[in-house]
Amino acid sequence: MSEISAMEGEKTFKQWKKQCLNKLDLSKKGSVDEDINTVVSSLNKSDNYFTTSSCSGRIILIDGVSDCVDVQKQNCSWLFVTHKKCTKDEVMAALEKSSGDAVLKFEPCVLHVQCKRLEDAQLLHSVAINSGFRNSGVTVGKKGKIIMAVRSTHCLEVPLSHKGKVLISEEYIAFLVGVANNKMDENLKRIERFYGCLRSALEPEEDKRCVKDTESDEKAVYRRRRRRRERDGAGSDCNVEQQSDSEHSDELDGQLGLFS
Amino acid sequence: MSEISAMEGEKTFKQWKKQCLNKLDLSKKGSVDEDINTVVSSLNKSDNYFTTSSCSGRIILIDGVSDCVDVQKQNCSWLFVTHKKCTKDEVMAALEKSSGDAVLKFEPCVLHVQCKRLEDAQLLHSVAINSGFRNSGVTVGKKGKIIMAVRSTHCLEVPLSHKGKVLISEEYIAFLVGVANNKMDENLKRIERFYGCLRSALEPEEDKRCVKDTESDEKAVYRRRRRRRERDGAGSDCNVEQQSDSEHSDELDGQLGLFS
Repeated sequence: MSEISAMEGEKTFKQWKKQCLNKLDLSKKGSVDEDINTVVSSLNKSDNYFTTSSCSGRIILIDGVSDCVDVQKQNCSWLFVTHKKCTKDEVMAALEKSSGDAVLKFEPCVLHVQCKRLEDAQLLHSVAINSGFRNSGVTVGKKGKIIMAVRSTHCLEVPLSHKGKVLISEEYIAFLVGVANNKMDENLKRIERFYGCLRSALEPEEDKRCVKDTESDEKAVYRRRRRRRERDGAGSDCNVEQQSDSEHSDELDGQLGLFS
Repeated sequence: MSEISAMEGEKTFKQWKKQCLNKLDLSKKGSVDEDINTVVSSLNKSDNYFTTSSCSGRIILIDGVSDCVDVQKQNCSWLFVTHKKCTKDEVMAALEKSSGDAVLKFEPCVLHVQCKRLEDAQLLHSVAINSGFRNSGVTVGKKGKIIMAVRSTHCLEVPLSHKGKVLISEEYIAFLVGVANNKMDENLKRIERFYGCLRSALEPEEDKRCVKDTESDEKAVYRRRRRRRERDGAGSDCNVEQQSDSEHSDELDGQLGLFS
């Protein structure tokens, strides 16, 4: 890329960033979720990134239209939503309001980040994968917009009622709430790991080369962790081990060594 | 990119493709799923793509270790798997074998495609998004490997037992099987749409420009569909409308018009 077009690219990116960060928050909630705030701030402070949307993860109870064949067009009403853990009583109180097909869902953290250059997207992608967000991927749109979507497959989706009639017991709801809360815990750990890896990746250039260095005997992040301990006396949260749960895409990716 | 490095890139891609297509199938099943076979064949016939892994979608019952805090390390045993629809009796028979925490899952089609150039990945990404695979994304790895992952969020994950004790009624299982089968139907429709859009996208250069043309009054794919009908008497399955279900990432993407 010529020096002139690199400069133009930088200018365009800065303009996009300024426009985006000045816009109103159009989400239902209207503000950045607390548990993702430090990640969002770190990214927006960097010259090479800005966030375009985020959600720290949520447990929701939605009421869909019963027997609706065309799933795309059904309107769902939201009976309950939390970005933290929930209780059985909260879910049961919300479920009483169901008149259609209520579904309890756990949805993990999702983050969309616009990146200045493809190499910035690649770096962020490595951070995401290493933190457990194994469904992350890049989009290169028209006009050169590069978006890295941080995604996980870690989810729950459980129908609870049909035409307003509750199909499961209170005991089951209690168990389900425990499962959903465990997923929320795991989700928050992944966000912490992501933040730790991100901080390491956004450190000054001399350390940044370490993130890409896979030839040395000692893994790059462990080296940084050691240096940080030596420097600060505190360890980083970054875990570079590949997560090996039973999720679908992981199984396929694992066989291919795609992200090694 | 210089002419010489473009030629080298082409040669490297061809070598990767040859190696990959000659390898043994290391998946549990050992062969390409029937319902994704035409898509896989189309891609592998093209000079610009080859598939590295695929699954047409599946309904599975897995048995996890109860009370296992570290979800990454638990080994799950597979009690049941099908790439088609299932019956209540099949699920109940499999559930009887549970000794831990059984979970019924629907997992949609997943496809990983290595692309020759970034523009090939972008084209395939548009095809995927337009067909409903809204969690699709690109990875650019070391050595320049470009992988487009075709993914959907369309899923089901329902705990059914805890420590081998079944927590739900037979009536609920029957309802759940209906929900899972509906998702399988929708999944197969998305695969068909993907195939239709893919064929249009891989047509000769004069038609390929139509895929990227969003300025004209008539949507490009409708124009191709009309031409195909005029030519063949049969319509294409490609649906370019944005899917607007309640899935998490869709909500965020929709607000941003990321994929317009």
